[in-house]
Amino acid sequence: MENAPIRVTVWGENAHDRTKEEVKQVYPNGMHEAIAAGIGQLLGSDATVRTATLDQPNHGLSDEVLETTDVLTWWGHTAHDKVDDAIVARVKERVLAGMGLLVLHSGHYSKIFRALMGTSCALRWREDGEREVVWTVKPSHPIAAGVPPVFIVPRQEMYGEYFNIPQPDELVFISSYDGGEVFRSGCCFTRGLGRIFYFSPGHETYPVYHQPEVRRVIANGVLWACRASTGRQTQQLPEGAPMSPRGWFES
Amino acid sequence: MENAPIRVTVWGENAHDRTKEEVKQVYPNGMHEAIAAGIGQLLGSDATVRTATLDQPNHGLSDEVLETTDVLTWWGHTAHDKVDDAIVARVKERVLAGMGLLVLHSGHYSKIFRALMGTSCALRWREDGEREVVWTVKPSHPIAAGVPPVFIVPRQEMYGEYFNIPQPDELVFISSYDGGEVFRSGCCFTRGLGRIFYFSPGHETYPVYHQPEVRRVIANGVLWACRASTGRQTQQLPEGAPMSPRGWFES
Amino acid sequence: MENAPIRVTVWGENAHDRTKEEVKQVYPNGMHEAIAAGIGQLLGSDATVRTATLDQPNHGLSDEVLETTDVLTWWGHTAHDKVDDAIVARVKERVLAGMGLLVLHSGHYSKIFRALMGTSCALRWREDGEREVVWTVKPSHPIAAGVPPVFIVPRQEMYGEYFNIPQPDELVFISSYDGGEVFRSGCCFTRGLGRIFYFSPGHETYPVYHQPEVRRVIANGVLWACRASTGRQTQQLPEGAPMSPRGWFES
Amino acid sequence: MENAPIRVTVWGENAHDRTKEEVKQVYPNGMHEAIAAGIGQLLGSDATVRTATLDQPNHGLSDEVLETTDVLTWWGHTAHDKVDDAIVARVKERVLAGMGLLVLHSGHYSKIFRALMGTSCALRWREDGEREVVWTVKPSHPIAAGVPPVFIVPRQEMYGEYFNIPQPDELVFISSYDGGEVFRSGCCFTRGLGRIFYFSPGHETYPVYHQPEVRRVIANGVLWACRASTGRQTQQLPEGAPMSPRGWFES
Repeated sequence: MENAPIRVTVWGENAHDRTKEEVKQVYPNGMHEAIAAGIGQLLGSDATVRTATLDQPNHGLSDEVLETTDVLTWWGHTAHDKVDDAIVARVKERVLAGMGLLVLHSGHYSKIFRALMGTSCALRWREDGEREVVWTVKPSHPIAAGVPPVFIVPRQEMYGEYFNIPQPDELVFISSYDGGEVFRSGCCFTRGLGRIFYFSPGHETYPVYHQPEVRRVIANGVLWACRASTGRQTQQLPEGAPMSPRGWFES
Repeated sequence: MENAPIRVTVWGENAHDRTKEEVKQVYPNGMHEAIAAGIGQLLGSDATVRTATLDQPNHGLSDEVLETTDVLTWWGHTAHDKVDDAIVARVKERVLAGMGLLVLHSGHYSKIFRALMGTSCALRWREDGEREVVWTVKPSHPIAAGVPPVFIVPRQEMYGEYFNIPQPDELVFISSYDGGEVFRSGCCFTRGLGRIFYFSPGHETYPVYHQPEVRRVIANGVLWACRASTGRQTQQLPEGAPMSPRGWFES
Repeated sequence: MENAPIRVTVWGENAHDRTKEEVKQVYPNGMHEAIAAGIGQLLGSDATVRTATLDQPNHGLSDEVLETTDVLTWWGHTAHDKVDDAIVARVKERVLAGMGLLVLHSGHYSKIFRALMGTSCALRWREDGEREVVWTVKPSHPIAAGVPPVFIVPRQEMYGEYFNIPQPDELVFISSYDGGEVFRSGCCFTRGLGRIFYFSPGHETYPVYHQPEVRRVIANGVLWACRASTGRQTQQLPEGAPMSPRGWFES
Repeated sequence: MENAPIRVTVWGENAHDRTKEEVKQVYPNGMHEAIAAGIGQLLGSDATVRTATLDQPNHGLSDEVLETTDVLTWWGHTAHDKVDDAIVARVKERVLAGMGLLVLHSGHYSKIFRALMGTSCALRWREDGEREVVWTVKPSHPIAAGVPPVFIVPRQEMYGEYFNIPQPDELVFISSYDGGEVFRSGCCFTRGLGRIFYFSPGHETYPVYHQPEVRRVIANGVLWACRASTGRQTQQLPEGAPMSPRGWFES
């Protein structure tokens, strides 16, 4: 199977990346660049990776960009409100039509994730530099391939249950924190033709996106979410809700 | 266990119920009254049932009504657009806070169902008076209790796959039609604290809501969706996404 | 709704309950009596509770007992091998025919649980008297009704992932331990007409089955697993795999 | 990504393949050879395909064969009883350790499928040469790639609900039949590290395994079930249920 490279767009809010000194020290080029670098490092010529940010025209997500994106990754935190509703609607439409979506860390509260989930996506949180331990609970899943059964993120923001999401189609990772909390940290969903993976490790003041295990999970997520990666023609959906006369499917 | 009666509100669009002669012949008091009558007939003193319609102030769904509703049923078809976005937002909020929701037939395309599902909820359809055969595929489910393993709706609008919904938490019924189509006709979801049941049989020009098996499914759906029916205090969710200091849960 | 009381049989291995001094101090009448007492305390006249143990004829699970049991709870640890295969087959048959089953703690490795799951049901473990924190991740579930969103078991054996079970139909609780492990501690399955709930808190040398929250979860589990509790006629399955002539379901 | 070819073993009962004239006319070399040919045709150099049959020593499934099999396909019908329990136990062990398994048509009643499911796997059936219509209900799934949204098997044995299996992790296809029955005809499960796909179209007296759409589904099933196909190191499970001292995962 010879497949065309997966076209990945890494979207970053790029807000405190530029304004906060402590973030700049960890991610001097912005978090989106670190995320993009990790994908590029692990997928090599199997992927082409570009970035897009909030401050660009159309937040960097023009129709042309979206139509040439197989998988979009989304990191936002402090400026969810500033994302234009029309862009969110367009991204949602693209996901339902088959574009993969990786929602990272504080992206849980983004407009796009909430619109696709239908719930509040609220959670408990605490910034206390705690250790997060990430456990695989579905080791047969492609996103777990090459990932250790358990790995440690030395310092991380705590994200705790109850995480207000629909029941995931597949739950791949669960995390614990020093304080005793747990979190469903790796969750797979499908919506329409699109595959969605939420992964919680990753914070602006800790070097989580430089960590090899985290990079592996994200790269695996890109491969899983990309439905074009089979190299075979994927199914298309009809426009709207078509009246279908008796026998329409019989040639 | 002695429980308070379940407070059911049956919402009906009540549009072609009033204008189309063929609908009036089948449902002289509107479809909502037939649905309400079926629930009342089967649940008796275990439920109190009232109706609400589009043309009433706030579509009959004031805050007071919603706050005293344990389970809401929703039938709409021709006027989905006319439902006020603010009311939809309020209903959604109530579902996430634990109100049960039954979405009936053409309600698949309502704003509230689409907002909770995050998908288009599109399907294929045909009005040809076909026979629908409804099969139970999860006989252990409370919604299947007292329902025959298979039953026939003599004349029904065809609803066919692909039905663009998230994978249901539980799939209870699958239907076939004379033309060869199939449909996931009974689907359970949870969103936040709310339980949602979609059930497709039911059309304005056929007496589906007078049929005993259909009434039984809907009454069972009300019982299942009503979280208060256990008579025990149900869990509450915190407001928003609370910062939770280490040890917050240790008294 | 006036229902007949739920007929619960609490099965206990009753091995180290009789031989180990430290177990006798915590559970002077055996663990099964403590489990039975908890169910009786919370369900009152809604349930009739009896016990059965390994050392009795047929392990206390004669056909007559099984046929008059709505929900069976199972605790075993050191003598899984001593349970007769014929009894296991009979219990499995009854579960598939609709008897509810609660599998408790070390029952994860029982013959009956493994036969129903089809997997090894292995896990990681450690006896170190650690604190277990139990988190609700499906607060809308009837088993979570009246249970705090989070509660602490002060001293408990550690059970950790990977827990080799099929993906649960519904995941209700996840636990963490002082050592950093996590565990899917409350899992719902259906097999045939039977509902199965696995719940991990509970150990022979700690007073876990005296703890109010644990008792509430187990009582809720009994209510959920009992399909007869709806008071309506539940579906029956045909014998074997019947040849079904065309039109068999049309009267 | 350059992967080693997937090693597929196609197991066939090869009973009425040799004795019944009507089967020989459709499958002159046995059904297993037709199934193997379909996989070879579609996967080409991405797979190496061999066959094994009941009448061979160890049913053709020696330890050596099983240890060099990435995906096993299973077709049996009239001789399920004749399959040695020790071989079934060995196949099950291999599936839990990560070997993919495709269970085809009447294989629903095989010892290996029943052992992995934990249920009776019973269904309704009828041999009446009916048309089966196969509908995709999860178009985003890799097994649906390149498969039409709906296709017709002109003549097929009827398999109808209730199909006594656990709720599938993912439901990909639902079929209807002329007689009005429906069937969950394409179901995905995971058990341990192994992925299992059940697919019902396929019968000994109809040329179903020569049909292009059916061959595509089976080839896709092989790709999906083969966890080695990612080219990355997959997770391993520990032996048994290991005592894990505090901090065991901290290097």
